Amino acid sequence: MTSLHDLLSRGFASDNYSGIHPEILDAIVRANGAHQIAYGDDVYTAELQRVFARHFGEGVEAYPVFNGTGANVTGLQSMLPRWGAVVCASTAHINTDEGGAPERVGGLKLLPVETPDGKLTPALIDQEAWGWGDEHRAQPLVVSITQTTELGTLYTPAEVRAIADHAHAKGMLLHMDGARISNAAAALGVPFREFTSDAGVDMLSFGGTKNGMMLGECIVVLNPDASTGLKYLRKINMQLSSKMRFISAQLIALLDGDLWLRNADHANAMAARLRGALEQGLADGSVTGLSFSQPTQANAIFAVLPAGVADKVREFYRFYDWNPATGEVRWMCGFDTTTDDVDDFVAALKKELISA
Amino acid sequence: MTSLHDLLSRGFASDNYSGIHPEILDAIVRANGAHQIAYGDDVYTAELQRVFARHFGEGVEAYPVFNGTGANVTGLQSMLPRWGAVVCASTAHINTDEGGAPERVGGLKLLPVETPDGKLTPALIDQEAWGWGDEHRAQPLVVSITQTTELGTLYTPAEVRAIADHAHAKGMLLHMDGARISNAAAALGVPFREFTSDAGVDMLSFGGTKNGMMLGECIVVLNPDASTGLKYLRKINMQLSSKMRFISAQLIALLDGDLWLRNADHANAMAARLRGALEQGLADGSVTGLSFSQPTQANAIFAVLPAGVADKVREFYRFYDWNPATGEVRWMCGFDTTTDDVDDFVAALKKELISA
Amino acid sequence: MTSLHDLLSRGFASDNYSGIHPEILDAIVRANGAHQIAYGDDVYTAELQRVFARHFGEGVEAYPVFNGTGANVTGLQSMLPRWGAVVCASTAHINTDEGGAPERVGGLKLLPVETPDGKLTPALIDQEAWGWGDEHRAQPLVVSITQTTELGTLYTPAEVRAIADHAHAKGMLLHMDGARISNAAAALGVPFREFTSDAGVDMLSFGGTKNGMMLGECIVVLNPDASTGLKYLRKINMQLSSKMRFISAQLIALLDGDLWLRNADHANAMAARLRGALEQGLADGSVTGLSFSQPTQANAIFAVLPAGVADKVREFYRFYDWNPATGEVRWMCGFDTTTDDVDDFVAALKKELISA
Amino acid sequence: MTSLHDLLSRGFASDNYSGIHPEILDAIVRANGAHQIAYGDDVYTAELQRVFARHFGEGVEAYPVFNGTGANVTGLQSMLPRWGAVVCASTAHINTDEGGAPERVGGLKLLPVETPDGKLTPALIDQEAWGWGDEHRAQPLVVSITQTTELGTLYTPAEVRAIADHAHAKGMLLHMDGARISNAAAALGVPFREFTSDAGVDMLSFGGTKNGMMLGECIVVLNPDASTGLKYLRKINMQLSSKMRFISAQLIALLDGDLWLRNADHANAMAARLRGALEQGLADGSVTGLSFSQPTQANAIFAVLPAGVADKVREFYRFYDWNPATGEVRWMCGFDTTTDDVDDFVAALKKELISA
Repeated sequence: MTSLHDLLSRGFASDNYSGIHPEILDAIVRANGAHQIAYGDDVYTAELQRVFARHFGEGVEAYPVFNGTGANVTGLQSMLPRWGAVVCASTAHINTDEGGAPERVGGLKLLPVETPDGKLTPALIDQEAWGWGDEHRAQPLVVSITQTTELGTLYTPAEVRAIADHAHAKGMLLHMDGARISNAAAALGVPFREFTSDAGVDMLSFGGTKNGMMLGECIVVLNPDASTGLKYLRKINMQLSSKMRFISAQLIALLDGDLWLRNADHANAMAARLRGALEQGLADGSVTGLSFSQPTQANAIFAVLPAGVADKVREFYRFYDWNPATGEVRWMCGFDTTTDDVDDFVAALKKELISA
Repeated sequence: MTSLHDLLSRGFASDNYSGIHPEILDAIVRANGAHQIAYGDDVYTAELQRVFARHFGEGVEAYPVFNGTGANVTGLQSMLPRWGAVVCASTAHINTDEGGAPERVGGLKLLPVETPDGKLTPALIDQEAWGWGDEHRAQPLVVSITQTTELGTLYTPAEVRAIADHAHAKGMLLHMDGARISNAAAALGVPFREFTSDAGVDMLSFGGTKNGMMLGECIVVLNPDASTGLKYLRKINMQLSSKMRFISAQLIALLDGDLWLRNADHANAMAARLRGALEQGLADGSVTGLSFSQPTQANAIFAVLPAGVADKVREFYRFYDWNPATGEVRWMCGFDTTTDDVDDFVAALKKELISA
Repeated sequence: MTSLHDLLSRGFASDNYSGIHPEILDAIVRANGAHQIAYGDDVYTAELQRVFARHFGEGVEAYPVFNGTGANVTGLQSMLPRWGAVVCASTAHINTDEGGAPERVGGLKLLPVETPDGKLTPALIDQEAWGWGDEHRAQPLVVSITQTTELGTLYTPAEVRAIADHAHAKGMLLHMDGARISNAAAALGVPFREFTSDAGVDMLSFGGTKNGMMLGECIVVLNPDASTGLKYLRKINMQLSSKMRFISAQLIALLDGDLWLRNADHANAMAARLRGALEQGLADGSVTGLSFSQPTQANAIFAVLPAGVADKVREFYRFYDWNPATGEVRWMCGFDTTTDDVDDFVAALKKELISA
Repeated sequence: MTSLHDLLSRGFASDNYSGIHPEILDAIVRANGAHQIAYGDDVYTAELQRVFARHFGEGVEAYPVFNGTGANVTGLQSMLPRWGAVVCASTAHINTDEGGAPERVGGLKLLPVETPDGKLTPALIDQEAWGWGDEHRAQPLVVSITQTTELGTLYTPAEVRAIADHAHAKGMLLHMDGARISNAAAALGVPFREFTSDAGVDMLSFGGTKNGMMLGECIVVLNPDASTGLKYLRKINMQLSSKMRFISAQLIALLDGDLWLRNADHANAMAARLRGALEQGLADGSVTGLSFSQPTQANAIFAVLPAGVADKVREFYRFYDWNPATGEVRWMCGFDTTTDDVDDFVAALKKELISA
């Protein structure tokens, strides 16, 4: 079979428009051949436990799954009784982009809270963290935060720790959706564990797909006391891969060396380059009519464009409207974004902004 | 990353202990690079529609998913109202090996029927096909059959047609779990459509993983009137891949040429060779104490061994006990089973059977 | 068995602290004796269809159930595919007081909207009514409003009509939680159908328990095109009463004559008397420190009390804190609230407010 | 309202075709008036705990619910993790008559076993009690038996004890569906606890409706270590009655004195009278062509009639076909069956059997 797709197609739509990083593809090739026990009793999945232990601490448990929704729903379900509820930001992926899977498949009630920047705080959590013991109210027993958030913002280790302490003091557990956790670690310049295990996070959805894998995420139990039955729930939730070695091998390729960091650092740098160029343009007058709606702390830029500009630029580079009513758009950079991509995109933007 | 696994490890445990067929791995490589729209709006998934149409007829719809349980539960759910039930063989994968996912995630009631060989018949279906209009009884609205069955047996096109006609006459639809559908087509020597679309099957789970893919199955809607909302259900059931091009490209590699047939033919031939050698041994007295519990119609052999023999042979070749109480075991051949594998295995069996 | 409870116990906690209205108890007695077909094929349930048709129009369908949560979840489920979502006020009973049953049992996603007074409007609905066709978003296909609302406020027929037209224009259906629908009709001074069937409501949970029944609510399908499978869903959701005649007979007793109206009028009048006395007190200075947080449009009063006052008054009359942080309380009047209850309560309040 | 129904209508269809026993109706009347805290914090529900403790032992917990399906599903759910399964007879009400509620609402997988008489045994249980630790198999963690069974048969205390010991030895818990538990106790001539708490049953659905109540069953936790979260699950499963005093008062009326026993003894005696008369007729030749398919151990008779007879007799007395293919029918007696009912029915049967 030859390639069917346009090998020049590029854009800023999402970090999952990218393909597979060559080192990860190579890991798939090397994991091939001969027989391995199916459903996770293979040597790659065993090795993966050691790799995650090095990053997150001894005793953590890693359950590879297919995708982020699967990781979130299954991990949360393992933390909660059938009557439990999850306090989250209203912008959380579990609330807005999972088609209701947490409710329908997980049987979970979400208790969403409005936030200015996608980030929860102890005070915001308290808007929904109440009513324990009252059977009329779904019981808020888990807080879920996203790192980096769906708005491209970042929790510092101290912010995570404050949320964890607050949740734990109220008898709640802390879940982190880490679909872009590598971008967070790269941006913060700290090891993963500083804002996860060591900061009191109990459960993590570790994201691989958006950082160069073909597919695959990993449920990581940071606090084994916080989770029950993941082995069974992963199967029930249809997230148990038979040839699991090929997901585990990808995760090992990402995490055993520094590929996770190289990829994330690069994506963050490309976002910074894009934002920097536009801010420079605003300062020197070569860019007009554009503003930013969120800080750029990792690999996402949220901007507001004049009417019509987005559609014009999209003829060359695909990206998403975030809020059509306000003209807000999102630009994501990935491990494969090039400086040329950025520079050409800036040029295209400038051209359309000027003629707008 | 180097290979971690023993590259000489072989066995007869399952066709999902194998790795990736080289032509499929090559298709993954060729689908890599540049950007493709996520979640199925890519050119590979579009092409896949044409490939499935060639095999199953114009108008069929193909929804790639991650695994077989995901394909079965999601496909069945799309065929049934919330009060629907599924008549199946008690040995069906949906009943015995999916951890209750059809019930828990699908909200489906299964109505299992005992069979001698894993195959339903109109008369067997009628044991549970009754009670329409009575709200106390989960409404039997779908029949599900497996091709080849979990016991390695096969439905002829005429048998499928008889079941389809019977089901349709009672207002029921017909689902086929085709985890090993290529082995069936190869064994029958007919195109897929002769025992699916053309025989009245409404919905198919097309299996890829067990026939050489890294991972991936496909829900194939053969009768669009028989299914609603698959687009949404696939997402809700956490079976929607973001970088779907890599699943679609594998399916294309399998189906665009004759790879599906070469792989399945080979697996079937290896099973025939294994069974033939043992039957020859029984005939000439070089094999004793072994018997067969099912016919070998595709790539599976079900045999009964004297106590102790299975564990001895398993020191060299992994395989599963099927019924520990009776000594029944299952041997599966795959696309990568070699004649040496078979011959060495027969030799090992003979040795242990004689000393038993 | 003698009575175990304090026959003088009174309060303003909820209209479900009351007992059974004598005329309804009498209907239970008269429905007793001899045999009636179980599960709804009895003459009382048949007659009930005619009673509801008189109030809501020919062709409506009435499904008696046990309680309000059962009515809401089952009715909504019958209006929605598995991927549907419900736009509702964040204060809606389905969102705050049903323990997550809509999500867990119904498999529904709720899309709650903040409101000042518990009432949705077309503009408020539009905050969540978008994203059709995108499988990542639970599909908003039903709007649910509560009449009277959980904050004691009321929709006019014109307001309901505007919401219905808006919903229908967007391809959505309209559900009404009518736990206190009789209080609404009494307050508006119009027949039920003026703000339900004739105003475009598709589905109704008709409340009986809070208006004098022992137990029982009724799912009323106003638009049969808007609902599928209620017969089966009522059973599955464990809301199918075997001796249904006793629920239907109560509903008939409420609705065949004007008992529904007498009870609701009385409850509303008692609430007006309570509010009037306190407003008079505020005007003449005999009441201080109290304010009202919502208008009193039916049988509920929402007031804000100085710290400590609520607990003091509760030594004599039970009622609920609504928002402990602000001192907001709720006082409900029922069919059995007496003028003495109101006057004594006002006196007790005045006493504590003065000493506060 | 006057009575709408035929006060002479009688039959043998089901013990839920009956009305309310006068002593229970009286209890409803006495529980009426004044205010009681809603949702179970009333004095009747408190007293009910003491009543159940007298029958079943100190420490048991009683949760009144609306109906039997609600009791079974909610009780079972509280005993099982999300991945648990229930071994039951294939004829069990949970498997055949609850519309799939255990699967759909409970998320439970049932593992049904064929039995000759509706009764499980340790050996029958072992057909499905295996596979612990294998995530592909729903984990069999509860055994559910029905007392008396759906086929009118009875477990002795020793048989229950043997099942309980067997289940517990395998790490499983024991649930009893006691929809007709009073008939069992009456037939066995022993207190409830001899074949429940004292015999190792962990959880009970105590039946009230079929023994003279208007409606209401009770989940009785016999072993508090065997159940978690019933308070929440009852609400989520829409089984929490607001005016709970009226269900609790009925249960008290049944259980505080000996009404439960009088009613059950009478129903059993009427079934014995019916069966005795027919057996006498078979012996003396006045009855021909009829046979019995199950022993009559409580209040049910299962008989096989010649073609056409059932429909003729049903012109006068309603009853159910059990197996239309074989002519098997079921006759149930209740607390309100009279000797005249029985004698007239026997006469009608004799007449039609002779002319058949």
